Amino acid sequence: MATADKPKYKVIGTRPVRHDGADKVTGRAKYGADIKLTGMLYGATLRSPHAHAKIKSIDTSKAEALAGVRAVVTSADLPEQGDRIVELGEGAANMRHLTANVLARGKVLYKGHAIAAVAADNIHIAEEAIKLIKVEYELLPPVLDVRKAMSAESPVLNDDIRTESVGSAPASKDSKPTNIAKHFLFEKGDIAAGFAKADVIVEREFDTSMVHQGYIEPHNATVFWNTDGKITVWLSTQGSFSVRQQTAELLKVAISNVKVVPTEIGGGFGGKISVYLPPVAAMLSKKSGRPVKLVMSRTSVFEATGPTPGSHMKVKLGATKDGKLVAGEAWIAFEAGAYTGSPIGPACMCVFACYDLPNGRVEGFDVCVNKPRTNAYRAPGSTHVAFATETLINEICEKIDIDPADFRIKNAAKEGVRRVDGPVYARVGMVETVEAIKNSEHYKAPLEGKHRGRGIASGFWFNCGLKSAASATVNPDGTVSLLEGSTDIGGSRTGIAMQLAEALGITAEEVTPTVGDTDSVGYCDVTGGSRVTFATGIAAIEAAKDIQRQLIARAAMIWDVDASKVSYSDGGLHGPAGKHLSFKEIAAKLHGTGGAVIGRGTSSEATQGGAFGTHCVDVEVDVDLGKVQILRYTAAQDCGTAIHPSYVEGQIQGGAVQGIGWALNEEYWYDEKGEMRNATYLDYRIPTCYDVPMIDTIIVEVPDPQHPYGVRGVGEVPICPPPAAIANAIYDAVGVRMHDLPMSPPKLLAEILKKES
Amino acid sequence: MATADKPKYKVIGTRPVRHDGADKVTGRAKYGADIKLTGMLYGATLRSPHAHAKIKSIDTSKAEALAGVRAVVTSADLPEQGDRIVELGEGAANMRHLTANVLARGKVLYKGHAIAAVAADNIHIAEEAIKLIKVEYELLPPVLDVRKAMSAESPVLNDDIRTESVGSAPASKDSKPTNIAKHFLFEKGDIAAGFAKADVIVEREFDTSMVHQGYIEPHNATVFWNTDGKITVWLSTQGSFSVRQQTAELLKVAISNVKVVPTEIGGGFGGKISVYLPPVAAMLSKKSGRPVKLVMSRTSVFEATGPTPGSHMKVKLGATKDGKLVAGEAWIAFEAGAYTGSPIGPACMCVFACYDLPNGRVEGFDVCVNKPRTNAYRAPGSTHVAFATETLINEICEKIDIDPADFRIKNAAKEGVRRVDGPVYARVGMVETVEAIKNSEHYKAPLEGKHRGRGIASGFWFNCGLKSAASATVNPDGTVSLLEGSTDIGGSRTGIAMQLAEALGITAEEVTPTVGDTDSVGYCDVTGGSRVTFATGIAAIEAAKDIQRQLIARAAMIWDVDASKVSYSDGGLHGPAGKHLSFKEIAAKLHGTGGAVIGRGTSSEATQGGAFGTHCVDVEVDVDLGKVQILRYTAAQDCGTAIHPSYVEGQIQGGAVQGIGWALNEEYWYDEKGEMRNATYLDYRIPTCYDVPMIDTIIVEVPDPQHPYGVRGVGEVPICPPPAAIANAIYDAVGVRMHDLPMSPPKLLAEILKKES
Repeated sequence: MATADKPKYKVIGTRPVRHDGADKVTGRAKYGADIKLTGMLYGATLRSPHAHAKIKSIDTSKAEALAGVRAVVTSADLPEQGDRIVELGEGAANMRHLTANVLARGKVLYKGHAIAAVAADNIHIAEEAIKLIKVEYELLPPVLDVRKAMSAESPVLNDDIRTESVGSAPASKDSKPTNIAKHFLFEKGDIAAGFAKADVIVEREFDTSMVHQGYIEPHNATVFWNTDGKITVWLSTQGSFSVRQQTAELLKVAISNVKVVPTEIGGGFGGKISVYLPPVAAMLSKKSGRPVKLVMSRTSVFEATGPTPGSHMKVKLGATKDGKLVAGEAWIAFEAGAYTGSPIGPACMCVFACYDLPNGRVEGFDVCVNKPRTNAYRAPGSTHVAFATETLINEICEKIDIDPADFRIKNAAKEGVRRVDGPVYARVGMVETVEAIKNSEHYKAPLEGKHRGRGIASGFWFNCGLKSAASATVNPDGTVSLLEGSTDIGGSRTGIAMQLAEALGITAEEVTPTVGDTDSVGYCDVTGGSRVTFATGIAAIEAAKDIQRQLIARAAMIWDVDASKVSYSDGGLHGPAGKHLSFKEIAAKLHGTGGAVIGRGTSSEATQGGAFGTHCVDVEVDVDLGKVQILRYTAAQDCGTAIHPSYVEGQIQGGAVQGIGWALNEEYWYDEKGEMRNATYLDYRIPTCYDVPMIDTIIVEVPDPQHPYGVRGVGEVPICPPPAAIANAIYDAVGVRMHDLPMSPPKLLAEILKKES
Repeated sequence: MATADKPKYKVIGTRPVRHDGADKVTGRAKYGADIKLTGMLYGATLRSPHAHAKIKSIDTSKAEALAGVRAVVTSADLPEQGDRIVELGEGAANMRHLTANVLARGKVLYKGHAIAAVAADNIHIAEEAIKLIKVEYELLPPVLDVRKAMSAESPVLNDDIRTESVGSAPASKDSKPTNIAKHFLFEKGDIAAGFAKADVIVEREFDTSMVHQGYIEPHNATVFWNTDGKITVWLSTQGSFSVRQQTAELLKVAISNVKVVPTEIGGGFGGKISVYLPPVAAMLSKKSGRPVKLVMSRTSVFEATGPTPGSHMKVKLGATKDGKLVAGEAWIAFEAGAYTGSPIGPACMCVFACYDLPNGRVEGFDVCVNKPRTNAYRAPGSTHVAFATETLINEICEKIDIDPADFRIKNAAKEGVRRVDGPVYARVGMVETVEAIKNSEHYKAPLEGKHRGRGIASGFWFNCGLKSAASATVNPDGTVSLLEGSTDIGGSRTGIAMQLAEALGITAEEVTPTVGDTDSVGYCDVTGGSRVTFATGIAAIEAAKDIQRQLIARAAMIWDVDASKVSYSDGGLHGPAGKHLSFKEIAAKLHGTGGAVIGRGTSSEATQGGAFGTHCVDVEVDVDLGKVQILRYTAAQDCGTAIHPSYVEGQIQGGAVQGIGWALNEEYWYDEKGEMRNATYLDYRIPTCYDVPMIDTIIVEVPDPQHPYGVRGVGEVPICPPPAAIANAIYDAVGVRMHDLPMSPPKLLAEILKKES
């Protein structure tokens, strides 16, 4: 459903076959692991068997002596980083931590932490050599619980970490090393006065486990360090320019010495931004003089890449009995993993973001524990807090007997509302998504049957802008070749091509999009934050405008009139006295009037208005097993303007399914030594098509005025509502309120039995 | 040596290490045959054993039935072309002939003519299958001599060819098919009156044999026809956009359905422009659903690609006794090969191009014979006619007793002189190259010893402009990534990068050039005609200016001043009150001021002023064997402005050596059946380092005012003077005048014996 002010588009809103479709369905698309180079060596990585230990010594001599081994590296081969903080496109990076995460320095901080790597003639020799490396450890007690890690008595992981204060958090008085890397505080209004006005107050504690993005394709990198110092990296990544910069900074070479060639990517969801393998493969290549390929095992992907943190949260909400939220308070501690960098910041900003909350206080902590360094995962931090807030909202609704949809509409964030952390909303569609659910067939349908229940929940994601660039060249047959640097994790090349096509008045099929390497295209920030269709789309539209300007000049020359008398619209040029040239016609004339036309465009300052989604779910609980079956699922989301509705639906469906997995089954299962005991897809259960019904989608279109066509990012917010919506549905079904993710059979059964007893 | 008006450059004229150097010297650079794709099939081609025959039938059934064979194609699989003439960037193409040359239709016109092709699981099966194809021929008499082919009695190769008249040639009255495809006539002044004024007239007939470009890398193409209709072609080529267009036209698909990915190229010299393999591999791929690779054997390269024609020429020159040329007349017949398209046009334009000739008449014929369809070879057509004209010039000089250098200076073409075919020269450096030789140590040095002689000769090549495009992006570290579409056959990527660097005031090393595929870069015409350093250089300079304009806007924003107050020079931005930002400084600030900067530029209308070279050679003739040894060789050439002098020297040296090979040894040796009997590098002798001394070069710099830095193309003219210079040296050594190329031992010995007897 679209707002009344949506313009009529020719390309936008249609569903052309994706440009990479044939390659994807025939299996011909090249992924990172498909890269094969002449003389390429295969690498293997020695990883820590311990969650927390000092490395006393590493002896690689036997590995080096093995026939077929061409190079061995440890952290001693990577440059010292000191206290450098480097600004990456997606945020600042502590280089000391980044390099120590790539190859452990002095200490291992989690089971699976990389210690050394070998390049050999084949993978078997490499794996054999790994076993010949001798490491002496001094074991330290593992720190696995976020609250225990915060206590003064806890062993400390990093001796260079002091608490950094953000927002209005007071500066830390402690000069001793700590596991609390960051302390956030955001306040709005008068929290005490707010709660004083409340007729009903609910306050609960929540726990969520660490979960993984669960992409199918493992991390990979093939690197060649040429004799002239130029380093080429082939890999699947969410950001080739980010890999370029991280690799250059980790190796202390100029960024222009690093060329990153992105392949197709088999899933990222935030987890393929940080660099793990490229600097290691690069050093192995430098030492061996050969290209080196490293591919992670599934177990290493779980143990040693960047899942989203587990958390402990305490959230309190107050409302009047006529259904008006008056105050909210949240205390959130996130497992940063081995080093700082969890999405605790976004979590603090998102926790009350769906609502017009007059008084609020949010405190957050980024806490190091002996688990892998966490990283972005689809709307990072927002799903955790939505689980807390959205279940509390329903609890309030129950107490004051109001329909949870009506309550959400009444309190919804809208244009002009200021969030607790400061920003004021532009035009947003929270109200519209709740209304869409409220008016949906699903929400109106009766739900019959035993142990069945229905729940709704909302979610928010900022959607960022950041920097993008694109160029486009006009072919003589009236088609356009589009070159852009945003790696395509979810169909963006087609979405961007469609915007270019719309701007030029040609068809999507007449645009051939290419994702270029870092030596070929203008700088693009990572594919993440739901930014690409928005920002790289703007860059493509700017490139189209640049083409239009040049075509106007050509037409003016051909017609011998002043350029001011020529305009471009409806896919063609219009001049005095009814003169007209279609895009195809002028394209055929470029070869006699000045040659090729290349358009270029960038996007840099544009910001997005934020995306909201509201989901409705029906569940049936098997009260004997504690197992939850999803019966029906509907997701409504404000997508601004849906460029390619099939992709939008796919993003919503995919996000919802990931949220369902997080809600019901997914978790990092650590033993007391800090070993993850379920680091395979057999034991770490992500949902399959057997576990979920068709996810119905309602595309709500409230155009974002900050984009020429009103685009809002769509990829992230659909993961936020599911855990809360399902928890609310479980309560509706069996009367127990779940505060711990995942709501797996043993936990749910225990609650059901507790209630029954 | 440079003219006094040469500006001071920082980058231009230096000799940086080439950007592709490491890959080239380590063997890591990827050439066409290095391409390997998943599931790739290998192809083989059935070629005609006869020079001239009708194809009565082709039976491919046994080949198709062979296990491991995946597809077989004949001309029946390629679309009919009818009478289509298609304008390619480098000239018009008769599509009926082009497709029949790719796979014979109805007739074979030369030994080695492709008839059918097979794709199989490996090359052995493919070659086996080829032998199973049965072709029934009706033999026709081969037409091998250009003059006999012109006679009315000759068998006619193509029944669709009528003589096309060019210049002032009268329209053909004959409506019958003919082997004379084109008739050129150019006239200037009054030829009879001119010769009437002459005190001395020389007239000779000349013959030259067909010779090959002799590139080391054979033709190749790997093609995948995807299920969505998109065709990707990987190959080494001089023009990826030309391959795109030829392939699309031959397959009758849209050009935007064809993507050409150029690899490195192991030599082209004009021979890697025409398409032979891509449409065949494409059809094999379409039929098999798999990528297909075709690579020619050396014998097929000789027999079935595009050498330069053999010729018969009659040239007459008249001069006054005080050394002024008064008239010239030339009659030139070129072997077109199987289809029309020899460089007879350029030959007619070049024959008197070095001189200010008041009265001239040039008549030329493009004549079909049963040999491969000829193609461009370094200064196409100019070497043939320089052999004739430049030996006659020396004969005149002898007759009127004038130094051949002085005579050339006196009669040299210069600015304002009109060529016989019409065009008037802009600023050119013919005089300067002869003066450079005249003043050279070599020319002044005494030459002692028996049977030794010295000769000089000059040569001309137009140097064309045509269309180029480039784009460039600024990296945050102050380097620039340059993307251009001119495949690099002789170092152009570095030469273009240097011009970009000069324009921006950065170093050559700070530019990373990439040659992109046809989906990534703006349209570029072929790498040929000595155009790339000139035209793609201009496109890069325009891209630099586009960058400058954007950087000026950024600086104005940063300084909060009007853009008109900011200028770009000396590698940086200058604003009011001494404000300054170096390129590196502003590059680091792009990420906060609007994002990436992409510059784009094109070149389309610019034409070049023409290049001249004069060579001096010392030879020693073994009068018992007829073998000529090159003792010393000096080449002076007007290079406008030498961008990278090492490359310029390399081009001059390479051209001179190819000219030496043509002069002394290279020839297509046909038997009476039309079979080339020396189609291997064992029997077809190209010069090696054992055969030539170091070629000394004198770079003469007369800037071309049509290029911002005065560039002239340098690649082609150095091949023109050698045969004539060597012939003149042979005469000086042993007193015989050679009129037949190559001046191989048997021919020279015969002349020596004739003279002695």
